[in-house]
This record gives sequence, C-alpha cells and structure tokens, in this order.
Amino acid sequence: MFHAATKVTIIAERLLQDKIVKALEAGGAKGYTVVDGGGKGEHFTRIEDSASVVNAFSIIRIEAILASDDAARAIATDLETNFFNQYSGVVYLSPIEILRPERF
Amino acid sequence: MFHAATKVTIIAERLLQDKIVKALEAGGAKGYTVVDGGGKGEHFTRIEDSASVVNAFSIIRIEAILASDDAARAIATDLETNFFNQYSGVVYLSPIEILRPERF
Amino acid sequence: MFHAATKVTIIAERLLQDKIVKALEAGGAKGYTVVDGGGKGEHFTRIEDSASVVNAFSIIRIEAILASDDAARAIATDLETNFFNQYSGVVYLSPIEILRPERF
Repeated sequence: MFHAATKVTIIAERLLQDKIVKALEAGGAKGYTVVDGGGKGEHFTRIEDSASVVNAFSIIRIEAILASDDAARAIATDLETNFFNQYSGVVYLSPIEILRPERF
Repeated sequence: MFHAATKVTIIAERLLQDKIVKALEAGGAKGYTVVDGGGKGEHFTRIEDSASVVNAFSIIRIEAILASDDAARAIATDLETNFFNQYSGVVYLSPIEILRPERF
Repeated sequence: MFHAATKVTIIAERLLQDKIVKALEAGGAKGYTVVDGGGKGEHFTRIEDSASVVNAFSIIRIEAILASDDAARAIATDLETNFFNQYSGVVYLSPIEILRPERF
C-alpha cells in the first residue's frame, strides 16, 4: 500500500548545512539525507543577472521526506525566506509515494 | 514524445547494495544508477523512536527507472518487505517522463 | 506561493558534460547542478541487449530546473536526439514545485 508524500530537496552552500538541518527537524522531518558535493559537485546560480559560481567544494544536497504535504510546504517556505534571499541555493518539492508513512 | 515512467529510489546501507541490485534486476529493471556516499553522505533514520545514525561512509543511493509502473511498485514492495523491516533505509517512487520507453 | 516547474535530469558519461551544459544554457536553463560520480557512481545501461558498463569514474548527474515546461521538454528532446542515440545515458523529466519562479 503506497501513500502520497512530499520530498523537500535543498541544494545549498555547505556553510548552511547545520541551519538547514535544524529547520528540517523543527519542521517535523523525522529523517533526512545529506550528500556532500565535496569537490565533486558544482552548483551554479544566477541571482539578479550576475552569475555566481559556488565553489565546487562547498555544495550540499539535502533531502527530507514528509508524510505531511503541509509540513513540507512550511519547511520549504521557511528555508526560502530565511536563507535563499541572502545565499544562493534552491529548494523544491517533489511528489513521491512511500510505504509505511508512520516512519516519515 | 514523452512517456510516463516510474523511478524507484533506494537509500540504504552499503552492505545491502548487491542484494538491492539483484532485486532490481529480478524485478525487471534494465538499468540502474548507484551513487556511493563514500564518506560524503549521511542518512539518519529513526525506527521506533530510537534514533539510528547510519555511518557516513556506508550510504548508497540507487535509482532505477521502470517503464512499467506495476513493476516499479512490485520492486519497492519487495525491498520494503525483505530489507527495510530489519535495516534502516528508504524506498520511494517518483513519477517521471522519459523518451524511448523501450530502453527501460 | 508554489509554482509548478519541471526538472530535467541527465545521467551521462563525463565526456559529455560540457556539451550538455551548453545545451542546457542554449535551452534557457538559468542554473544547473553538476554532481560528478568521481569513482563513487556507477551507471549501467543496456542498449540493444548488449550490456554496457560505464566506468565508475566517468559518470555525471546534471539537473536543471525550468519554470517553463515547454523549455524543459525541448531540452530533453534535444539531448536525447543529439547525444543518447550514440552514447549511453539517460534524460528524464520530473514535476516539481518551486518558489520564486523568476529565478528559473
């Protein structure tokens, strides 16, 4: 039996990792995955027409699955407001399906 | 011409890699991608309220695309039943669109 | 306020990275993420029944988010036509939701 859930993905500068993880936990995420680009990832963003190339060593990708779509949206809105006005980074939501929603 | 397909994503302890790959092949996946966290990934899950922190060096992420949604669901159910009652890990499905469905 | 967007994901041999990035930019992607498998990723594809194992050191995963679904489809079609008839690799689309669509 599959259940709809929402995945929050954040691509951000490494210096934000602890703050993002705290925001995820505060928002109700029971688990999350952190992948460190560690010299193997590059993230390029352009903010207001000036290209900003984030150092290849500083990128993290964090994903959290939320059984509650509302909780996922609240987390994404919180991150966008608190971090990504200042820092380059991306947050987006993906529709997924999970088994055992009680774990998320 | 795009065709609906289903992506199965598994985040699991590295020791499960071979078994997961066998389950994917048995379930009809013609291709898959394995990304080894290799000291750069962390996965935290909480099972039954006791936090389990999986070693940062032991995480793999495996993705397989199935042209058949039924096949993807069967694989996910199989993995959940056979592995993730015992081991920490996550399996989820994502709706995607592909070109050339005969390759998947 | 969330807005529907389309994510293009490409899994390909590393030698294609520059060409893929050019195709993304030509197609209107304002930003993209490149993750180098760098000995930590494996991608297996089978083309026409002959298994082709791509070297573990040569895989990249590139993702780009497009606010325009049409632009995402045009990029995916372009990549499939120009590269993945010859080279092993995968391109797929995922429905996502973003904040601040003007950035994508």
